[in-house]
Amino acid sequence: MSPDEISKMLRRVRQGKLSVEEAVDRLRTLPYEDLGYAKIDHHRSLRQGFPEVVFARGKAPEQVEGIVSRMLANKHNILITRGDEALYERIVRLDKTAEFYALSGAIAIRRDRKIRGKGKIAVVCAGTSDIPVAEEAAVTAETMGNPVETLYDVGVAGIHRLLSKSRHLREARVIVCVAGMEGALPSVVAGLVSAPVIAVPSSIGYGASFRGLAALLGMLNSCSPNVCVVNIDNGFGAGYLASVMNRL
Amino acid sequence: MSPDEISKMLRRVRQGKLSVEEAVDRLRTLPYEDLGYAKIDHHRSLRQGFPEVVFARGKAPEQVEGIVSRMLANKHNILITRGDEALYERIVRLDKTAEFYALSGAIAIRRDRKIRGKGKIAVVCAGTSDIPVAEEAAVTAETMGNPVETLYDVGVAGIHRLLSKSRHLREARVIVCVAGMEGALPSVVAGLVSAPVIAVPSSIGYGASFRGLAALLGMLNSCSPNVCVVNIDNGFGAGYLASVMNRL
Amino acid sequence: MSPDEISKMLRRVRQGKLSVEEAVDRLRTLPYEDLGYAKIDHHRSLRQGFPEVVFARGKAPEQVEGIVSRMLANKHNILITRGDEALYERIVRLDKTAEFYALSGAIAIRRDRKIRGKGKIAVVCAGTSDIPVAEEAAVTAETMGNPVETLYDVGVAGIHRLLSKSRHLREARVIVCVAGMEGALPSVVAGLVSAPVIAVPSSIGYGASFRGLAALLGMLNSCSPNVCVVNIDNGFGAGYLASVMNRL
Amino acid sequence: MSPDEISKMLRRVRQGKLSVEEAVDRLRTLPYEDLGYAKIDHHRSLRQGFPEVVFARGKAPEQVEGIVSRMLANKHNILITRGDEALYERIVRLDKTAEFYALSGAIAIRRDRKIRGKGKIAVVCAGTSDIPVAEEAAVTAETMGNPVETLYDVGVAGIHRLLSKSRHLREARVIVCVAGMEGALPSVVAGLVSAPVIAVPSSIGYGASFRGLAALLGMLNSCSPNVCVVNIDNGFGAGYLASVMNRL
Amino acid sequence: MSPDEISKMLRRVRQGKLSVEEAVDRLRTLPYEDLGYAKIDHHRSLRQGFPEVVFARGKAPEQVEGIVSRMLANKHNILITRGDEALYERIVRLDKTAEFYALSGAIAIRRDRKIRGKGKIAVVCAGTSDIPVAEEAAVTAETMGNPVETLYDVGVAGIHRLLSKSRHLREARVIVCVAGMEGALPSVVAGLVSAPVIAVPSSIGYGASFRGLAALLGMLNSCSPNVCVVNIDNGFGAGYLASVMNRL
Amino acid sequence: MSPDEISKMLRRVRQGKLSVEEAVDRLRTLPYEDLGYAKIDHHRSLRQGFPEVVFARGKAPEQVEGIVSRMLANKHNILITRGDEALYERIVRLDKTAEFYALSGAIAIRRDRKIRGKGKIAVVCAGTSDIPVAEEAAVTAETMGNPVETLYDVGVAGIHRLLSKSRHLREARVIVCVAGMEGALPSVVAGLVSAPVIAVPSSIGYGASFRGLAALLGMLNSCSPNVCVVNIDNGFGAGYLASVMNRL
Amino acid sequence: MSPDEISKMLRRVRQGKLSVEEAVDRLRTLPYEDLGYAKIDHHRSLRQGFPEVVFARGKAPEQVEGIVSRMLANKHNILITRGDEALYERIVRLDKTAEFYALSGAIAIRRDRKIRGKGKIAVVCAGTSDIPVAEEAAVTAETMGNPVETLYDVGVAGIHRLLSKSRHLREARVIVCVAGMEGALPSVVAGLVSAPVIAVPSSIGYGASFRGLAALLGMLNSCSPNVCVVNIDNGFGAGYLASVMNRL
Amino acid sequence: MSPDEISKMLRRVRQGKLSVEEAVDRLRTLPYEDLGYAKIDHHRSLRQGFPEVVFARGKAPEQVEGIVSRMLANKHNILITRGDEALYERIVRLDKTAEFYALSGAIAIRRDRKIRGKGKIAVVCAGTSDIPVAEEAAVTAETMGNPVETLYDVGVAGIHRLLSKSRHLREARVIVCVAGMEGALPSVVAGLVSAPVIAVPSSIGYGASFRGLAALLGMLNSCSPNVCVVNIDNGFGAGYLASVMNRL
Repeated sequence: MSPDEISKMLRRVRQGKLSVEEAVDRLRTLPYEDLGYAKIDHHRSLRQGFPEVVFARGKAPEQVEGIVSRMLANKHNILITRGDEALYERIVRLDKTAEFYALSGAIAIRRDRKIRGKGKIAVVCAGTSDIPVAEEAAVTAETMGNPVETLYDVGVAGIHRLLSKSRHLREARVIVCVAGMEGALPSVVAGLVSAPVIAVPSSIGYGASFRGLAALLGMLNSCSPNVCVVNIDNGFGAGYLASVMNRL
Repeated sequence: MSPDEISKMLRRVRQGKLSVEEAVDRLRTLPYEDLGYAKIDHHRSLRQGFPEVVFARGKAPEQVEGIVSRMLANKHNILITRGDEALYERIVRLDKTAEFYALSGAIAIRRDRKIRGKGKIAVVCAGTSDIPVAEEAAVTAETMGNPVETLYDVGVAGIHRLLSKSRHLREARVIVCVAGMEGALPSVVAGLVSAPVIAVPSSIGYGASFRGLAALLGMLNSCSPNVCVVNIDNGFGAGYLASVMNRL
Repeated sequence: MSPDEISKMLRRVRQGKLSVEEAVDRLRTLPYEDLGYAKIDHHRSLRQGFPEVVFARGKAPEQVEGIVSRMLANKHNILITRGDEALYERIVRLDKTAEFYALSGAIAIRRDRKIRGKGKIAVVCAGTSDIPVAEEAAVTAETMGNPVETLYDVGVAGIHRLLSKSRHLREARVIVCVAGMEGALPSVVAGLVSAPVIAVPSSIGYGASFRGLAALLGMLNSCSPNVCVVNIDNGFGAGYLASVMNRL
Repeated sequence: MSPDEISKMLRRVRQGKLSVEEAVDRLRTLPYEDLGYAKIDHHRSLRQGFPEVVFARGKAPEQVEGIVSRMLANKHNILITRGDEALYERIVRLDKTAEFYALSGAIAIRRDRKIRGKGKIAVVCAGTSDIPVAEEAAVTAETMGNPVETLYDVGVAGIHRLLSKSRHLREARVIVCVAGMEGALPSVVAGLVSAPVIAVPSSIGYGASFRGLAALLGMLNSCSPNVCVVNIDNGFGAGYLASVMNRL
Repeated sequence: MSPDEISKMLRRVRQGKLSVEEAVDRLRTLPYEDLGYAKIDHHRSLRQGFPEVVFARGKAPEQVEGIVSRMLANKHNILITRGDEALYERIVRLDKTAEFYALSGAIAIRRDRKIRGKGKIAVVCAGTSDIPVAEEAAVTAETMGNPVETLYDVGVAGIHRLLSKSRHLREARVIVCVAGMEGALPSVVAGLVSAPVIAVPSSIGYGASFRGLAALLGMLNSCSPNVCVVNIDNGFGAGYLASVMNRL
Repeated sequence: MSPDEISKMLRRVRQGKLSVEEAVDRLRTLPYEDLGYAKIDHHRSLRQGFPEVVFARGKAPEQVEGIVSRMLANKHNILITRGDEALYERIVRLDKTAEFYALSGAIAIRRDRKIRGKGKIAVVCAGTSDIPVAEEAAVTAETMGNPVETLYDVGVAGIHRLLSKSRHLREARVIVCVAGMEGALPSVVAGLVSAPVIAVPSSIGYGASFRGLAALLGMLNSCSPNVCVVNIDNGFGAGYLASVMNRL
Repeated sequence: MSPDEISKMLRRVRQGKLSVEEAVDRLRTLPYEDLGYAKIDHHRSLRQGFPEVVFARGKAPEQVEGIVSRMLANKHNILITRGDEALYERIVRLDKTAEFYALSGAIAIRRDRKIRGKGKIAVVCAGTSDIPVAEEAAVTAETMGNPVETLYDVGVAGIHRLLSKSRHLREARVIVCVAGMEGALPSVVAGLVSAPVIAVPSSIGYGASFRGLAALLGMLNSCSPNVCVVNIDNGFGAGYLASVMNRL
Repeated sequence: MSPDEISKMLRRVRQGKLSVEEAVDRLRTLPYEDLGYAKIDHHRSLRQGFPEVVFARGKAPEQVEGIVSRMLANKHNILITRGDEALYERIVRLDKTAEFYALSGAIAIRRDRKIRGKGKIAVVCAGTSDIPVAEEAAVTAETMGNPVETLYDVGVAGIHRLLSKSRHLREARVIVCVAGMEGALPSVVAGLVSAPVIAVPSSIGYGASFRGLAALLGMLNSCSPNVCVVNIDNGFGAGYLASVMNRL
């Protein structure tokens, strides 16, 4: 609640148009809905045309179904991340337009297809095995109203594959860059462009990759200053943040 | 070199205006300058009006001095990070307008004071001890042409201090948020705004803070999706990235 | 054995009412029961009306069954943690009143329902996925004779959800606060109240959460001084300790 | 601000006794004082007779001096932690009654010596080298109005030293237990009493103690359920929390 | 080969009783047998009446069977660690006297039951869940010819359970002490006796036990100087080493 | 593209034999093939007679099949690592000569059996359980045209087994040395020879081996200066690098 | 107190030779002396002719001096570890026979030079830089009445240096083996002998040695079963434990 | 000692030209020299014209001086690593030709300047701050008889700086590649060449570089198979190994 809204409400109290009790309530009530096991926050989507998002892992299928049912009451896009085939079967029964992305487990219900991003978001990944994380980022950015271009398998060991695509990189307004193993790709990509680069370490690798820790540390230590980092395998976060930037 | 520039040059070769040898050279030569111990990259600043930057730690004072002398030949702003009083004495002899920021050790030579950012950048920090890192971010953003507002000592243990400033936060186009110890501030700040939040873990703390590791992990696991993270104590990177975003 | 009891026994020895051999034995014998694979300690429950507790994980179902059979001989409440449906089937055959808590795997046999806590214990958790740990804490506190109020899904990314409940928090005499990911909730909660806050990191998260390590470090570095921490996912310990405090 | 206070203020607005503008201000203003580099929070101490606390490490001596000067304006006790002889010289000039605790670096200004704790707090430590941390806990608890008993050098390798003091332990309402190296003391102490035990890992040790990590992990894994843990070397936090519990 | 043996052989060469070629061979050949995938070392058992040992995990059942078949050719005891029911079925077909220890997965073939140890070895463990590791230590020590006494479930949280057994501990010539979680038991045990204590961290625990790391660090930092440590869950190593010490 | 090739092409542009557009394209096009989910890099094999390699783990079987189909179009050897029986069934249908190595999961299609290495490569491992990693190294080196000798189960605890093979070690031009647990073998081997030793930590072990971390750290700290290290379990990398060295 | 002693005392109580009050006291009093900041435990030395030991690091010089003054009252040997020249100056004033070992910082006062060990203890180290730790072990073992032989700079990279000393190793009843960097020496040594080997990781090394962690992990994973491990740099513990074993 | 040498010696024994005692001695004696605190190993240098090497850190200056004095008795090159100005003053008095390399602290005495390497070794580093480590590698390789070319400050954030030097890289027979921070350089360099690349992580960086750990992990996870890794800051090892390879 902004100071303006508080002023307006207080004036209505002085004018006797609003009871003291009700005003106290309003000051305490906020725009979320309580399902007991979850509190759905319509706040962000209400304000900004953002999708409503459910992180499926660690939730029972019935819980996800219950949450989505409520979300369908308004008209926003809905994005479910880290789901699976079985969950999709439940969701598509709630809404026939639901789409399933098998590699990442994402499920999207798009009811608002307006383009809101001001430019193109490029989603780049280093190896074939990083595609699931890249897909999650791409689906997220698309569901949030952005044109997305994907560039897969352009790791730094064959730098010519990457350089041959540098025009595509330079055309993007924001870049999401996924890499496992040594996680060197974002540094090189960021050196080729002046756009912000969101680096996503993937847990791809073995041995001393320590499930993405090597890539994470590499990205945090990037010598390119236009790089920032999100959590390991967090394609959703990268796609979301890219969308936020692309609306600036 | 963009495809356009290659086309243009090749046409000049065909027209006999450029010798084959020279063309080969140009394709190989790139806009950097070689001092032996360092290769100064004028590329970014040439293209974008960005400042030239020197990371002073781990370099001999004479090396920094040598690099800055060369940089003064063009007209960009110059930013030296992680310097000290003694280094400042050397630099101010090269250029009287050099300014020293004692808490962060930053030295700035501002010759171009044009505002290039499209909005305000807010630099927020959790505790008094985080101010050096916050200052580095603020100086970087200012040197890159941005209006900056600072909000210090608004940690989450006294959430009312932060909430009383939420209008200031909502007015910012990009937010830099520095916190040590548990690193919880960016999550809370990001929940209050829709702007991108660049989280900077600081090495402030003791014991199980493990020199910023606790704050770093906390920020990477933020449940707010508009948060991205840079290296521990990397105020410069945060300020730089905020500037990149603020030009979008 | 308290000095008083030793004095009393020694006097009986002097008066010839107790043989030297028997006294030596008593000094060596303590109130536990030996099943070979386990030594049941009736000590605490005898003294304080505390429940008898079995940690089921890592024990064979027959072992748990054997231990519970013995415990049923006295009249205390019995709490089994980290069990499952199959174990519950065994236990409910021993005592029909046994209750099963599916999310946390807790099994409780309540024969003494007297309220012993002097106030209310609030159990708060940050996300839907943290509920199993929170449930373990709540069941433990209830089995130990405390009124418990639960507040679920009030994470810091939507701080208004938490603030709207701050009266409930302030009414609690002791607060248990469960959070995974960045583990920031206890710091914020502790800033709103003056009661002791027992923070429980949950292993919820992925990537750089490192199975609860991020949340654990965050909580240990809390800038609120009324926060203490127990082991990752240790809902039982938190509920037990809250009960101890609530009897003070 | 509690709902009651909001109601009262709103009634005054309705009655025309308070202008709308002023009410907006009050809703935004909170009881802290802004020194620029620090925001002093009088909140806790105002409400509960708690001392005002300054963590000196990482702050310039002038900053600490500035903060303390403001704090002297009200009548609470003042506690400065992690200070040194030089800082004490400055502080004692502000208030002659300031006391210096050389081992821990604590400085206390006690103007309110009322006993507020309902029982005795025992501060126990395992070895001579743990005394600085224990002292910080003891001074904190004393400054917050508690009777404190200290038991030093009672580590588990000579268990008889500890057992001979068990009556003292059982008489305490809350126990603070400091240990470095393997950090086993709190588990043993907690097994002897029914009071809550606040375990403080100290950074004492070498090699595989990893500056207190070994003790920290040991304490978090305590098999005694009445143990909770605070940060490594955090004597202040333990003393504060013990005081909070001792007022329950 | 000892210098004595070399002297003897060289004398036989000088006397012409041994050809130069054969001597070269002997100097190169050593008492092991080569199965291609494994080199069986009869060395230790030949010299000392030690059992032949096979670590089954990570080896195919046929490989273990093959190795044991060869070992049966001589008359030593045979010990297989980390096996399972299925492997036992194979082994018992090779030798009917093979015994299976279900908790630890150990399989022992005892053909030499002579007592070689000079005193009693005590195997102590902290909790019921530590028994598998303790059993591996006990079986190893027995197979190597030692009288073994076991004391299970005597963790430090109920110190009286341990103290009531202190005579048993003092009677042992060597003590093996297994503990998970905080790993405090060896420090306390070692303080009660003057015998060497071999500490075995077990991987029992959850959360911040980090699969035995907490216990391992605790034991390495023991303040009792008569404690040494072996790898996590290494019951075999502890039992073996205890046997070596018990023959001193 | 080398400067020579650029010169040649530019001359053809000047002579009008090549259009400007085509030249721009060539400068951008590089010798890889794009399957959408993967970009096959024929570069290395084209240039050096190296095999084409597919890392199967994390790729769908159809993806591996698709990649291999394309690779079969040219005449190089093909090596698939980390495959399994099921994948082999697919591959052998594409090419009857495919061979399967069950321990390591390697699949090799050898169409070029020319010996290219200038000497022998020795592949040594410490224990029976390390053989899978050693096999991957051996198959890789053989597929790349090297004579390979294997020495298995020669760990340092029975140093005589290793020393009896020292002539074999000294005859090798390059040595690959695999070891898990404490990873000490490469240091000892490297002390016996003057050839380069490529150390491969294996994830064999338990407890404090932390899945190969102990062996990795041991090898990185080797006191023998002719040792270098590759990733945990990276038999392929070691075999590849040994082949590169053996062609020097 | 043994059961025998309790019986005897109780009989004296029955006979009226001892008052009840005094008996209670005795049961509580144990043979240690309380200096306030330290409790001197004369227990071990009283019973076994062991030296009294002071760990100097982390204690003020006056504290060490105070403790040693008391210890001089009885006739045991006294060992101070981790001291320095300045501390030695203080101690030698208390007792002229005090000896200083400059590399390790040990100070020994030997008043009882009786040989109590039943054989020779060998102290072996890998490199010149490990000598300080080895010296601490050797001094400790000597002060505890053992013949000690030292073998320095026999690391595994030049295995022949070690092998040429194998007779010396085989003659020892117990071996202490110090190594930094990869920590491989104990495995090799233990393979050459049948005596118990106490491995001491030293913090010698750089980079990935992580101050002894690499050596520690290596030793814990030793494939030789007659190896046990003590803390990093813990020469004292190794020497003490070797003495305990050598009295068996 | 090779089998040939053993045969020869044995024949002399048979012929009576060598006494049995002397033969036993020879079998035990090896070509090293014993200074008490160090055993100088002339083995490698005798055999291969390699320099004698002293690692100065952790050794007293007199110890280094003593070792070097002995080494001067033969005619090999001598290399001292991690020394300083003061040590150089001592060494240059022993031999006037000693050279000091201030950045790395290396001291070289070159008496044999024969080129033994078969090609050029390139030493590449990512940033100005990595030069000390690169210098150590370069000096080592030069002292071992190799032509060395250095390429400094060619990090991946400005990939054009590196690509413009790719001809230089392709001309090298072996490449040493030093990088701190994210450690991405070796992967990119190795993708441009077919020579073996020895990656050296440097401890340059701050925060999440964890003193070189990030670079180390990045290099171990390199997706280029012609990369191997040595310890953090181990320029000497890299230069030595490059020399070994360059003699192949």
